[in-house]
Amino acid sequence: MRDNITKQIAVVGASGYSGEELVRLLLSHPFVELAAVTSRQYAGKTVAEVFPKFSHISRAKSLRFSDPKPELLAKKSEVVFLALPHGVAADFAVPLLELGCRVIDLSADFRLKSAAAYKEFYAHEHPAPALLSQSVYGLPEIYRDEIKKASLIASPGCYPTSILLPSIPLLRNKLVNSSGIIANSLSGVSGAGRKAEAEYLFVECNESVRPYGVPRHRHLSEIEQELAFAAGTGVTIQFTPHLIPVSRGILTTLYLAPSDHFRDVNDYSGLSEKIAACFQKTYGNEPFVRLLEGNGLPDTKNVTGTNVIEIAWRLDPRTGRLVVMSAEDNLVKGASGQAVQCMNLMCGWPETAGL
Amino acid sequence: MRDNITKQIAVVGASGYSGEELVRLLLSHPFVELAAVTSRQYAGKTVAEVFPKFSHISRAKSLRFSDPKPELLAKKSEVVFLALPHGVAADFAVPLLELGCRVIDLSADFRLKSAAAYKEFYAHEHPAPALLSQSVYGLPEIYRDEIKKASLIASPGCYPTSILLPSIPLLRNKLVNSSGIIANSLSGVSGAGRKAEAEYLFVECNESVRPYGVPRHRHLSEIEQELAFAAGTGVTIQFTPHLIPVSRGILTTLYLAPSDHFRDVNDYSGLSEKIAACFQKTYGNEPFVRLLEGNGLPDTKNVTGTNVIEIAWRLDPRTGRLVVMSAEDNLVKGASGQAVQCMNLMCGWPETAGL
Amino acid sequence: MRDNITKQIAVVGASGYSGEELVRLLLSHPFVELAAVTSRQYAGKTVAEVFPKFSHISRAKSLRFSDPKPELLAKKSEVVFLALPHGVAADFAVPLLELGCRVIDLSADFRLKSAAAYKEFYAHEHPAPALLSQSVYGLPEIYRDEIKKASLIASPGCYPTSILLPSIPLLRNKLVNSSGIIANSLSGVSGAGRKAEAEYLFVECNESVRPYGVPRHRHLSEIEQELAFAAGTGVTIQFTPHLIPVSRGILTTLYLAPSDHFRDVNDYSGLSEKIAACFQKTYGNEPFVRLLEGNGLPDTKNVTGTNVIEIAWRLDPRTGRLVVMSAEDNLVKGASGQAVQCMNLMCGWPETAGL
Amino acid sequence: MRDNITKQIAVVGASGYSGEELVRLLLSHPFVELAAVTSRQYAGKTVAEVFPKFSHISRAKSLRFSDPKPELLAKKSEVVFLALPHGVAADFAVPLLELGCRVIDLSADFRLKSAAAYKEFYAHEHPAPALLSQSVYGLPEIYRDEIKKASLIASPGCYPTSILLPSIPLLRNKLVNSSGIIANSLSGVSGAGRKAEAEYLFVECNESVRPYGVPRHRHLSEIEQELAFAAGTGVTIQFTPHLIPVSRGILTTLYLAPSDHFRDVNDYSGLSEKIAACFQKTYGNEPFVRLLEGNGLPDTKNVTGTNVIEIAWRLDPRTGRLVVMSAEDNLVKGASGQAVQCMNLMCGWPETAGL
Repeated sequence: MRDNITKQIAVVGASGYSGEELVRLLLSHPFVELAAVTSRQYAGKTVAEVFPKFSHISRAKSLRFSDPKPELLAKKSEVVFLALPHGVAADFAVPLLELGCRVIDLSADFRLKSAAAYKEFYAHEHPAPALLSQSVYGLPEIYRDEIKKASLIASPGCYPTSILLPSIPLLRNKLVNSSGIIANSLSGVSGAGRKAEAEYLFVECNESVRPYGVPRHRHLSEIEQELAFAAGTGVTIQFTPHLIPVSRGILTTLYLAPSDHFRDVNDYSGLSEKIAACFQKTYGNEPFVRLLEGNGLPDTKNVTGTNVIEIAWRLDPRTGRLVVMSAEDNLVKGASGQAVQCMNLMCGWPETAGL
Repeated sequence: MRDNITKQIAVVGASGYSGEELVRLLLSHPFVELAAVTSRQYAGKTVAEVFPKFSHISRAKSLRFSDPKPELLAKKSEVVFLALPHGVAADFAVPLLELGCRVIDLSADFRLKSAAAYKEFYAHEHPAPALLSQSVYGLPEIYRDEIKKASLIASPGCYPTSILLPSIPLLRNKLVNSSGIIANSLSGVSGAGRKAEAEYLFVECNESVRPYGVPRHRHLSEIEQELAFAAGTGVTIQFTPHLIPVSRGILTTLYLAPSDHFRDVNDYSGLSEKIAACFQKTYGNEPFVRLLEGNGLPDTKNVTGTNVIEIAWRLDPRTGRLVVMSAEDNLVKGASGQAVQCMNLMCGWPETAGL
Repeated sequence: MRDNITKQIAVVGASGYSGEELVRLLLSHPFVELAAVTSRQYAGKTVAEVFPKFSHISRAKSLRFSDPKPELLAKKSEVVFLALPHGVAADFAVPLLELGCRVIDLSADFRLKSAAAYKEFYAHEHPAPALLSQSVYGLPEIYRDEIKKASLIASPGCYPTSILLPSIPLLRNKLVNSSGIIANSLSGVSGAGRKAEAEYLFVECNESVRPYGVPRHRHLSEIEQELAFAAGTGVTIQFTPHLIPVSRGILTTLYLAPSDHFRDVNDYSGLSEKIAACFQKTYGNEPFVRLLEGNGLPDTKNVTGTNVIEIAWRLDPRTGRLVVMSAEDNLVKGASGQAVQCMNLMCGWPETAGL
Repeated sequence: MRDNITKQIAVVGASGYSGEELVRLLLSHPFVELAAVTSRQYAGKTVAEVFPKFSHISRAKSLRFSDPKPELLAKKSEVVFLALPHGVAADFAVPLLELGCRVIDLSADFRLKSAAAYKEFYAHEHPAPALLSQSVYGLPEIYRDEIKKASLIASPGCYPTSILLPSIPLLRNKLVNSSGIIANSLSGVSGAGRKAEAEYLFVECNESVRPYGVPRHRHLSEIEQELAFAAGTGVTIQFTPHLIPVSRGILTTLYLAPSDHFRDVNDYSGLSEKIAACFQKTYGNEPFVRLLEGNGLPDTKNVTGTNVIEIAWRLDPRTGRLVVMSAEDNLVKGASGQAVQCMNLMCGWPETAGL
């Protein structure tokens, strides 16, 4: 298909799980021609050879991995996805932007507005601090208008998406306190990437569940930045990630306190309706946010392979606390699907195209 | 083996997962002769026929399931384990106690001191309220002396064990606040029992993680009762159980606030050492509590099949909050192993015998 | 979308795994409007309520399950899928055909040409023997032309598809003996359906692998019927199904002997090329058959969620035997995807539409 | 415990899965004092530090990994287990034997009687061919008397054990043909060892089943050697290993033809009884062989963690073929448990001690 709305798109670093998921989504996207995929490791091989699961798609049989060269990529593609480690992504973003490409970066390189915070959490100088002000955090439900016009998207991390979408509306509407927030998250093993490390072997993960990165995970930096924007004040949260034996999926359970207003008057009457109305107003028409009502609770198996995030909440009359739960596919809404959603917005396509 | 310390032991309701685990432990216990196992469903079959995995053990080939009759059980056995649903267990406990047996009940029937609380959480009148005052909560690390002399043990639930052991020492020593406690727990599917319900089918649990019973799980009643005893004041906690795709294991992450004393003076110096000392003093010599030091974090796969509970903690300087994590096998330390530990204490055997 | 090629389609018995997969495929099919789904259990509920995973699709929110009534179905739909147990399916097929519908039956009711064989393997009289001669076995790669014109399709079982597609070309071309064939198959647990039986609980299937139905599984009847058609002579095979802890997927390993011609002259030279050529000629242009070349071997994870069957083969110089291996998703190519492929052929749509 | 029957035992190469399983078994063995464990990677660390799951065992807290030095090992230990890669094991076996130790080698180095066959299958010269004639193949049910007196045991591979125990009695008693044997095996991922390779990552193994090493796996060499000893003639078999997503367990399905005697007279009457009698006579009193009778079929979950192998068989009246199925724990009966069983025989202890 080559019509006047089809665009040429490239993926740099397509050998990891996020890159593979981007390839999956872009191969079947109605308005995309996948023009280039790069991987030093696989250069010269076809996509079908590297990922047999795509080999019934004709484009996968003809398209070969190449070495990543910004000049060639820019000639071929209007939009370039970067699925690279942090620190490396910036090296490609800078020349690609200069060559006129629009860039959607799935690494952490452009998510933080502060180069100092970047250095604090990622332990090296930011490689391109001048770009931080122009990058847009790629959470479409929050930054839709900015994304449409952006030339550089910082696609959010998987944990941040699962935490930010449920909590930002509550903070913006002052329904919950900005202090004392706790996020308890459970992630499938693909979140660790396709790294050949012993701790991610089948035998080490099967019949195992374990916390890790306690108490300071790198994703805290972007989570707290975005929560602060929503709250209008600095936010520090408690965040505990856990590894569970599923391939895909993140389940986050948030513990929030109704805002002091409600506490002070000890009047929770109407709070439940206010929360429901807040979520409904913010997300009621969002194609990828599923607000669970009635007795429903999130389940990762209901979102796996889709760009949907499920959200449910319970106001506990015994404790006065609000428990909000979300489920998403860490590789789709938590990474590549959300990046494609951003691309759709940037290109003026229907936001759900190919998703 | 029949010597002067060997005792005859029976298990009533041995067809569920806890019952099967009791059978496993008792068949290889050095001082036990498994005298009777009952199950209406399997009456007449040998243990080896019902549980092929035990059929290399000679006693499993000779012992047949029988119908549960208190008079016969009392003739044969000094100690009787009840692995029955709540409400039913009391029907056996009453006559067995009258007939002189010592009873270790794995159901919820005798865990609560208040018949009113029982009715509130279990939705029916307590079947034998007169026994509530004499039953001992079977948490050996907390009630060792009482267990030794008890004739009726209420063996704790799997979630409560994972929450109580890490938090009781901290509450007793006033290191943490008794209010605002959050327990986020992840349980393997065996916790649901061997019930043929669609929601526990392999396909429904595999590649799935989901919260359930939010915000009011029945185990809250015994958790809050025991926390209140430790704190010396009423305690209400936030508890969220989740189902994860492992057969066995519970991982609990607790969020606690250092007690107001530390908050008021804003002086956390020394708190970390006080916590370490508190755990060390309480559990340093406990054979089944593994205090993780250094960088270790709990992992259910390190405790599966054993009676060990792993505990780790982190004081988060960013939030001032204490995160305590525990891992146990829900069927061993969370059920049958702990019950055997109680039996060992009651019979004057080494506490670790057969475990 | 309602244009001149869109058709109204119904699914009867949409609450099991095959039915759910049909709903998934039909909801996103470009030429289908899902007109009715039936389930006595779920009558009155929307598709989105029963299957939350589809609730981001608008049609799932408006379409409600109904009781299955042939007259109403026939008014609404041109093609009706039956995802019902054997014996029951015929009760719907008969009136639907009389009312002018085309029927695609996923049960075993119309797969066998012989009512006697049906009775032998399914233990009851065939409910509609007059229809056996007119039904077409829904294996598109083998019966494409017949399917296009058929009014009644008997969609093949999951095991048969995994065995027949690799072996029919070899038998038709007399490259292998029709006697002594062995099929060793491994199936994911969804193959057992959404039945609340203890043996399919997570805990019973996880960390377990086991043969079952040895030596006579019902699917043997249709496998041997179709192999006999291919061989031009009666065929009796050895078939051993096994249950493995995956949700989806069948991996079949076939053991075949090169035909006596090659054995007699003890000349295998050229046999390998003949096999490769046979597969290439038969399936080289098939969109859903992936012939693995070089070092590739089938892996269920490469076909899960797709309508593709992977096939690889090795001629063993040590034993003179041919080993052929296949992988498919038991719910897609092994059931619902293949049924949709048949629908596409029947309706004159591209064979790959919606797949 | 140090009495006159306790012996000092060492494990060389204790960091892999087989080594870890040896450590597990030896730490709780009633007559063993684990005197030394070696690992270059972990030298200096305690067993408890490397394997937290053993840290409730006091010996695990005091015993430190050391560098492997034959002189020191020989001073400390009477029996030394080698859990090393093939090719490397011989380098330790030679000096240890010279220093008077008895050696139980879990590698392939001493399993083959022919140095030429070793070179053919392992692709390098045998490192110590002079020892091949003195080593005993450590299959206690077959070579019990030889094992008792042996100074060098070649402990069998996991696949060979699952194939040899079911088939040797049938071949020895001429009940089945020695030609045309097919072994279809399914193995858990621990069979691949603790190697940090991408193909064994959780995400690559979960929801996956795949054959590998077709058609020539290294274990064929020892399988065929031992089958030939049993049959009294050369044997060539077809063997297909598959990887399935369980941590532990091997399920083998064997396809055998009743011997020509039965085929010639076309009289299978009594064959079933002869097979049952053959298995009963050979294994009826074996503590670690469970002959399944009636409707039972093997299931890996019934043997996991034990030294038991389950065996069942079906004579198929439709095909005239015999299907024999076995299940074992690849790390116990398929490796370390069987090695401990050999040690028990060598040391004159009860064969089941510690197992």
